Order: sequence, then structure tokens, then C-alpha cells
Amino acid sequence: MIRQDYKEMLNAKSVIREMFTYATEKGKEIGYENVFDYSLGNPSVPTPKEFTDTMIKLLQESDPIKLHGYSPSPGIPSVRAAIAESLNKRFGMNYTANHIFMATGAAGAVAHAVRCVTNTNDKVLTFAPFFPEYMHYINDTGAVLKVVPPNLENFQINFEAFEEMLTCDVQAVLINTPNNPSGAACSSETLKKLADILYKKQEEYGHDIFIISDEPYREIVFDGADAPYVSKFYDNTLSCYSYSKSLSLPGERIGYVAVNPKCTDAEYIVGMCTQISRGTGHNCPPSIIQLAVAECLDLTSDLKVYETNMNLIYNELVRLGFEVVKPSGTFYIFPKALEEDAKVFCEKAKKYNLILVPSDSFGCPGYFRMSYCIETEKVERSLVALREFVKAEYGRE
Amino acid sequence: MIRQDYKEMLNAKSVIREMFTYATEKGKEIGYENVFDYSLGNPSVPTPKEFTDTMIKLLQESDPIKLHGYSPSPGIPSVRAAIAESLNKRFGMNYTANHIFMATGAAGAVAHAVRCVTNTNDKVLTFAPFFPEYMHYINDTGAVLKVVPPNLENFQINFEAFEEMLTCDVQAVLINTPNNPSGAACSSETLKKLADILYKKQEEYGHDIFIISDEPYREIVFDGADAPYVSKFYDNTLSCYSYSKSLSLPGERIGYVAVNPKCTDAEYIVGMCTQISRGTGHNCPPSIIQLAVAECLDLTSDLKVYETNMNLIYNELVRLGFEVVKPSGTFYIFPKALEEDAKVFCEKAKKYNLILVPSDSFGCPGYFRMSYCIETEKVERSLVALREFVKAEYGRE
Repeated sequence: MIRQDYKEMLNAKSVIREMFTYATEKGKEIGYENVFDYSLGNPSVPTPKEFTDTMIKLLQESDPIKLHGYSPSPGIPSVRAAIAESLNKRFGMNYTANHIFMATGAAGAVAHAVRCVTNTNDKVLTFAPFFPEYMHYINDTGAVLKVVPPNLENFQINFEAFEEMLTCDVQAVLINTPNNPSGAACSSETLKKLADILYKKQEEYGHDIFIISDEPYREIVFDGADAPYVSKFYDNTLSCYSYSKSLSLPGERIGYVAVNPKCTDAEYIVGMCTQISRGTGHNCPPSIIQLAVAECLDLTSDLKVYETNMNLIYNELVRLGFEVVKPSGTFYIFPKALEEDAKVFCEKAKKYNLILVPSDSFGCPGYFRMSYCIETEKVERSLVALREFVKAEYGRE
Repeated sequence: MIRQDYKEMLNAKSVIREMFTYATEKGKEIGYENVFDYSLGNPSVPTPKEFTDTMIKLLQESDPIKLHGYSPSPGIPSVRAAIAESLNKRFGMNYTANHIFMATGAAGAVAHAVRCVTNTNDKVLTFAPFFPEYMHYINDTGAVLKVVPPNLENFQINFEAFEEMLTCDVQAVLINTPNNPSGAACSSETLKKLADILYKKQEEYGHDIFIISDEPYREIVFDGADAPYVSKFYDNTLSCYSYSKSLSLPGERIGYVAVNPKCTDAEYIVGMCTQISRGTGHNCPPSIIQLAVAECLDLTSDLKVYETNMNLIYNELVRLGFEVVKPSGTFYIFPKALEEDAKVFCEKAKKYNLILVPSDSFGCPGYFRMSYCIETEKVERSLVALREFVKAEYGRE
């Protein structure tokens, strides 16, 4: 008999996916250029030319047996060393290659990091609003995800609720900054306070509490924002990174776990990740992609379009009277819906070909997410539709 | 606290890895060309030129946003359709794209397939000699691997032992043909008999029993060998494939699960694999590799060197009086050691710069594995060392 829990999961569709499928179908009807599809977080700018050129050079000039050969389980040593060096230079850290585990994107990185620091039924805390896939990444490890309610004022941490939920059975805290879906980044002040609480509670409970820091949007930070490197604030930090957004390579599945050298048992964690890989069959990211990314560590795609789009949307939302926190980064914005049930709100928006994602599965009902990784020209046209929608349905203009 | 079971696994080194590390170190001392390294199963022939050319063409001519964009969780539809068509043409099957799940190599394929058809503590049977990593692939799913003792005569199935072990709590049977480490392929007669037993037991026990067929060596079959397609014999078969060996791409992590269309609940299994991916963070194989492999489905690397090497080694082993089954495929051979403890035998061989892997972890003590994916010239030189070793240590010539 096939396994029933996985089979039943097939009925629980992701609302993001559902909205994207609707947008695709609608596009076939009226032309996709006329569907204002804010559903998916798929980068809309190409990878840097240097990445493509490096890939071609590797293919043309390397011995194919070596180029496509097995990568050691933790990743190719030269690649891990280059990443350590780049992080040290940028953030004043002291990583060596031994602190870097190459993972298939941030999903693989988080799934491995959680497995390293939790046992079955241990609690992991995260903060609403949060990326709904965390439910799977965490709960499938055997640990249990608990969600701290949001700080609706600015989407920083709701410390009162957090301290109440930080009980002795919490082994790890999963944070995501800059945040999907809110676009908020944890400020230095927030991270300092978070670290202070965790250091205190580690002492009180007599065991480690780890921060698992999911940072795929680290490179997409807007002008003037305070978005510091998490691991600088707290030693027991495992930083999970992906090149999906910064180098526009979501399909190539490449990222890493960077273990703070001062983390408890830092010298074991990368090795443990390789043992976890054996059991999940996940293994390493592709060899050629590892080698090509290593040549582009200090580059990004041309990310400024996201800030342009954010400003256009944010200003219009404010003008229309939406409650909305100005994003510090990412390509998401997370305004409050104009009626209590965000699902109803997003359903009505469809009439205007606006594809918005209701916030219920992000742990923060009554809001909606817009992923503005689309052409600026389309953003501008979508704002006309937004005005029309808000005027017709809610009498605002 | 970091998780202790994974930490403890760091002490249990793979004997294959240990031998390879020894070979590498010895190579630094006397030149790697003088170390007859039969430890690792790393292809020694390059990927076909068509693969390299397709990769370059994709990089030069595709829109990079689409090329490197997210692959749908089960894989890129056109790639899955092309694989289904290729399998149908070659093996007379009736796969559609919906029966193909793209996986990161055979490791990922097997890990997913096992998770689909077992619950915690269910038994999975496999046959000695077997690839030691199966212990991890299976036991980390929560199922329990049980090993049927070998048929030492020809490394076909030991049916007597198998029938005894095929109790009601066995949900799946994992077979690997052509086999690592023996090089034996299950004959049509063996597969027919296996299927008959399983059909009978399914009826008797009133539940499905699945075959998980691990087939990374399917394309490396020697002249005259009977190595049929497993899924033709038994409906409840999940075929797990990797392009690591056939296209010499072990580092690029690409393969698939092909679900027999007549398998129970065939329509759910690929979807379930995508749910499993969410929890392991494994996701899809890299997009560009999926697209490039799809253009090379009916190609292989120039694999005939493996047969040349096999014949050289086999003939010499026979001449020296080793008990050895002639391989039908793969790039492995699995002779009986010349003394009871294969570890002692392989340790002595090191003196002659022969790096052989003792068989204990393959579930078949007293044998040794040679991975002959090395240059033929080196094989020839190694046979001189082998003669010297056997004469000096065991008085044979």
C-alpha cells in the first residue's frame, strides 16, 4: 500500500501555486501580458553574463571527467573555501571551508540545518508572517514548528509573545530576514535584543538554542535599510543561503549552510550534514554549478528593478489608504486587505486580473502578498487595475 | 545540543572512502599513476560530446530567466515526456510524462521511492551482495532494511532464503541489476521467478509488495548477457535510474523514478514524490542539466572500455585460480579472497599498490570488489602487481 500521509498531502494545495495556475490559465485566455501576476517569487532579471560565460568556459576548457565527476559530499573544497573567504570579507567573519556545507538551495540548507540541531518532537520557533513551506521543511524532520504571532506595527519581532513561547523544549529559532512575505528586515536593534534573550535562556535552560537563519534575500536590500548579517549577533547561528535570487538561478538548486565558527560543536555540523544527505538522497548540488557560482560570489543580477517596482507599488498603496509596512528588501510587499477575509479580497481582485496571494497560510490572516518580480512596465499597468479594483469594490480612490 | 545520532555516524567511515583516501595519499608519495586504485565507482570515460554541445547551446541561445528558472517539482514536463517516450521505445512500456519523477540521481530516486511505499518499521528486503549506502537510504526513511543472503554460485537470487524472509511485514523489495558490487545481472528466468513469488505473496498477504529497482548500470551490459528491464516482469515496480554512469555525469545529480503505469495507485506516486521533496529540501535536479540530458536520452558515453577491462581482469583472476563470477555488466567484479578475512587480504594487497575493497559491508564477507573504471593501460600494469602479490603472499602463479 502506498503511504497514506503523503497521498493525503496531494489534496492540500499551496495557495501560491493555485494563484499561479489561475494566472497561467487566464493568460491563455487574454494574453499573459494582461494578467498582473503577483503570485510567484521567480526572479525576473537574468543571471549575470559572467555566470553564463563561466559555464561555457568550464564546458569548453575542462576535462569533462573531472568537471562532471562526483563532488565530495560537503561540496567542492575550492568552492567552499571561496565562499568562506567572501563571507569573511563582507561580514568580518572567520569562516573556513570546513564551516561551509553546499546545499541544493535554501530549502535543502534549512532542512539539513534543522535536522542537525533537533530531535523528534523538539520545538522550533519561527515568526509570523512566514514562508508556508517552513511547515514542511520543519515538520518532516520530526521537529515541530511553532509560530510566534506577528508584530503588525513593523513586522519586526513580537518579543512579548516570543519570550512567552521560548520554553525549555525549544531547540532552534528559524528567522528569515529580509522576510518573505513582508519584505521587512530585522534591524540591528531587533537582532541584538533577540541574541540577548537567547543567550539568557541558554544559560537558564542549560542547553544550546540555535538560530537557523534563512537568508535567500540577503542581497536584495533597498536604499537606506538596516539589514545586518545575523550570525554577527549570535554565535550559535547556522546561516542558510541560496543563489536563487541573488544570481537568478532558482532552477539550478545551489546554496549553502554556513556554520558560525564559534557555534557549539561547529567542527561536527558540516560532517553531520553530509550524513543527513546520505539518508535523504539529496547529496550535493551539481558540480558544474558549484564551480560556476564560485566565480560569481561577489556579483549579483541587476537587482535594482525590484526597488523601482517596490516604490511604485508602495506609493500607490499608501495613496489608496492601505495599511502597509515599507519593505526593506526582497521582492515582496504585504499590505493589509481592505476587508477582513483576505481570501475574499483576493478573489475579488481576480476580476481585475490582479493575482494577489491571501495571507492565511503565512500565519497572518487579513493581509495579502504581492511578488513584484515582474517588468516595471507591467507594474505600472497593474496600478491602473488596482485603482479600478479598489474604487469599484471599496469606493476608494 | 546537536543531534547525537548524526554526530556518531561521523565515526563510521565508509570502507570504500577509506580505501580511496589511502590511494590518494599513496599517490602523492609514489605518483597516482603507480597506484592501482580499484576503490571508487567514478566513470573513467567522458560524457558524449553531444551533452557538452547541448549545454553550450542552451547557455548561448536560451533566455537565461527561463533556462535557470524553477523547474516544476516533478521535473520539466518536456523532459519527463521525452524520457517516457525513450523508455517506451526501448522496453515496450506505456509510460507517460505523469509516470516520471525527476530525481537527483539514483540515490534520490531510491530514497523517494522507498518513502512512497513504506511506513515506519516496514521491512524492505534486498539481496547480498548489496551497495552499502542502501543501509542509509532505507533506514533513514524509517523503514528497516533486511538483507537476503547471497547465492554464491552465480549471484542470482537465493530464492530459498528469500521466500523464508518474505514475511507479511515486507512492503518492498529493492533490487539492483546489473549489480554493484558483483557485476551480475538478474536473468529473465530470475526475474520471472521473483515476480511469480511476489504476485503469489501479494495475494496471500492481501497487500501490495513493490519492487524498487535500482538501475544506474542498466546501460553497461556486456556482450551476450541477459539483462532485461525489470518493470516488464512485475507491475508494482518503481524503476530508479541515474545518468551518472551512462552519461558519465555523477556530479550533476540527475536521474528519475519511473512508475509502472499498471502499478497500484500509479497516478499518485509522482505527486507523492514531490511532497516528499518538500520535506527533505531535495527538490528537483538542476534545470539546465534536465534540459541537456533530454537531448541525449538515447546516447551513452563510450562504455566499451569497461568490457575490455573486465575481460582482462577476469581472465587473469581465473588463470590465478580465483573463484569469480563473470560480470554481465557494470564496472565491478567481485572475486573471492584468497583467505577467509577479506580485510586482511586487501590490507596485504596494499603492499603491491593494489587498492581493493573488502566485502564485509556488502553483506557478503570473504570477497573483494574491484571498480575497473580506470585506463586499460593501468589495468594491464595492475595485473603484473596482482601476479606478484598472489605469488608472494599465497604461493600461486
